[in-house]
Amino acid sequence: MTQRIEAGSGSAVWIGAGLLGRAREYLASPSGRYLLVFSAGAASAAARIRASLAGRLTLDLSVGDREEEKRLGAVERIADAALEADVRRDDAFVAVGGGVVSDIVGFAAAIVLRGVAWNAVPTTTGAMADAAIGGKTGVDTKAGKNLIGSFHPPRCVLIDPAALDGLPERDYRAGLVEAYKAAWTADRNLADRGEKSLSAILERREEPLLDLLGGAAGVKAAIVSEDLRESDRRRLLNFGHTLGHAFEAAGGYRELKHGEAVAWGIAGALEISARRAGLTREDASRVRATLSALGPFPEPVRDASVLAPYLARDKKKTVRGVAGVLLESIGRARIEESIPEREWLDAAQFARLS
Amino acid sequence: MTQRIEAGSGSAVWIGAGLLGRAREYLASPSGRYLLVFSAGAASAAARIRASLAGRLTLDLSVGDREEEKRLGAVERIADAALEADVRRDDAFVAVGGGVVSDIVGFAAAIVLRGVAWNAVPTTTGAMADAAIGGKTGVDTKAGKNLIGSFHPPRCVLIDPAALDGLPERDYRAGLVEAYKAAWTADRNLADRGEKSLSAILERREEPLLDLLGGAAGVKAAIVSEDLRESDRRRLLNFGHTLGHAFEAAGGYRELKHGEAVAWGIAGALEISARRAGLTREDASRVRATLSALGPFPEPVRDASVLAPYLARDKKKTVRGVAGVLLESIGRARIEESIPEREWLDAAQFARLS
Repeated sequence: MTQRIEAGSGSAVWIGAGLLGRAREYLASPSGRYLLVFSAGAASAAARIRASLAGRLTLDLSVGDREEEKRLGAVERIADAALEADVRRDDAFVAVGGGVVSDIVGFAAAIVLRGVAWNAVPTTTGAMADAAIGGKTGVDTKAGKNLIGSFHPPRCVLIDPAALDGLPERDYRAGLVEAYKAAWTADRNLADRGEKSLSAILERREEPLLDLLGGAAGVKAAIVSEDLRESDRRRLLNFGHTLGHAFEAAGGYRELKHGEAVAWGIAGALEISARRAGLTREDASRVRATLSALGPFPEPVRDASVLAPYLARDKKKTVRGVAGVLLESIGRARIEESIPEREWLDAAQFARLS
Repeated sequence: MTQRIEAGSGSAVWIGAGLLGRAREYLASPSGRYLLVFSAGAASAAARIRASLAGRLTLDLSVGDREEEKRLGAVERIADAALEADVRRDDAFVAVGGGVVSDIVGFAAAIVLRGVAWNAVPTTTGAMADAAIGGKTGVDTKAGKNLIGSFHPPRCVLIDPAALDGLPERDYRAGLVEAYKAAWTADRNLADRGEKSLSAILERREEPLLDLLGGAAGVKAAIVSEDLRESDRRRLLNFGHTLGHAFEAAGGYRELKHGEAVAWGIAGALEISARRAGLTREDASRVRATLSALGPFPEPVRDASVLAPYLARDKKKTVRGVAGVLLESIGRARIEESIPEREWLDAAQFARLS
């Protein structure tokens, strides 16, 4: 069964088994011509897209997908290759890969000829649940992550579990954190089902995986379609990210994968949520049990003196504290604007997954 | 007298003598903080802006303004400097300079933190009449001019003739071609007044100059406010640009200034307009007389074998010919989609300014 979710701004998310082989029916290009950009790790998914778009490709380009490569230079190389291939305003890019690939290809699409269409074919659980949806594109600079970019939603996001073939186990599990995160913040039924199917999902069984990824994509799509530019509801998607970003940065972006850092960030946010948002011990335990089963994750740096500077750098900081997302109950989150830095650092100290 | 023109998308153009000294009343920044970026040639205008914004600047940066410097690297340097200065989402850039400066600063504003506000303070006649208005920002790549960029209109464009102090005579005259172009395509009364005042304008007399620049800004603002992304009416502003771009490129972007190339391009379009659009000999003579008085301009390369490749590269080319803007009469232009390449090359051969 193929599911279609509207993500606003003319962006549609398609979810189902076997979509890669029928990509031509779903991907969108006003001219019918496509520029394919993929990472080496996504070569097998790219091969299926290539076969489906036979005769319609004007570019076929492989790019790096490590976080260190998510820089403006990579976007410029994609743009130059597209211009060299005589890209026209009504052509469309197809990005096949994880979050780094959709970030840089989406940004290239935003600025080539002042904006052409693009499509995302995510090949990681993290990109399927989160990164490819919502239109945030961009790159890192020496000053920090995602500081340059554009809001430029893909016309189509194609989610097919077959695209996960070959995804290393650690990446598979880390990316699922973002899928469960979506459920916990906004959809209790999805969380219930996802927790019940956890072991089947870890075995990569298609049906429960599609249910979880489809549900997570639905949560994100519903939020971004009413609020493309981050202001209020979109911030709920940052659950676990206040401490998560600090953990990730403190590990030099090497020790912890993004989803793993978010898992620890969620664990920390649970401590504060219990105190400030009435989260029950039972709900907190359920979340921890799932995170624990998704792991084991490497231990984060917990030292307050190391974490504090990264927390201070957070865009959400004011003189009265640092904003964050708290869980009131599974399926229901809210934003709290000013939580003292001390509370975050204490929560980081005591965050646990079991 | 200060004139205010709405340019759509929340963008306002202010025109009047003495505005530089009162910049603070007109420039827009949600936070009240500004990032000033200026070219060396615009240092005296920048000094007046700096004085007016005393205590509100978080960045004060000088950049190059030659066409060769309009590359992505220049935009990245501006973005890095802004991020280093802790730019926030509610801050705003102020670009002080000619078209290159507004193109690169506007583009930096479009992508820093996925978009912050900006203001333009043009210091050339060309930028006042054309470049700073309408939201097209961007840079050149090795494949051609303005091929990477963004639609990102400035909140405010501040036009004060005092900003032209120190502008070399050749630039002053070349930029006026764009102002007259606007009048010829869309406002016969403005063209009448501008032709009558031509010698006073060449003497840089404030009142007639403000009338012409204000009128040209009004023409452009009216068009872009209904059609930000180039589709139909906006293309009328390309009068003289089909051949103009080819002349400019054939001279390696060194022999002819942009406005000078457009003057020759208009002269060529007059030939075709007489044949295809019913332009009278009298109207054509009036346009030529004005172009001639704005010159003398260096002779362009007219050789068909040199020009043809640049014409072919034009985005407006299809199998049946090359699109262009024709003049039906002074104040009235229209688009013709498919003019055979041969006609353009003949017109280039015989284009004359007197």
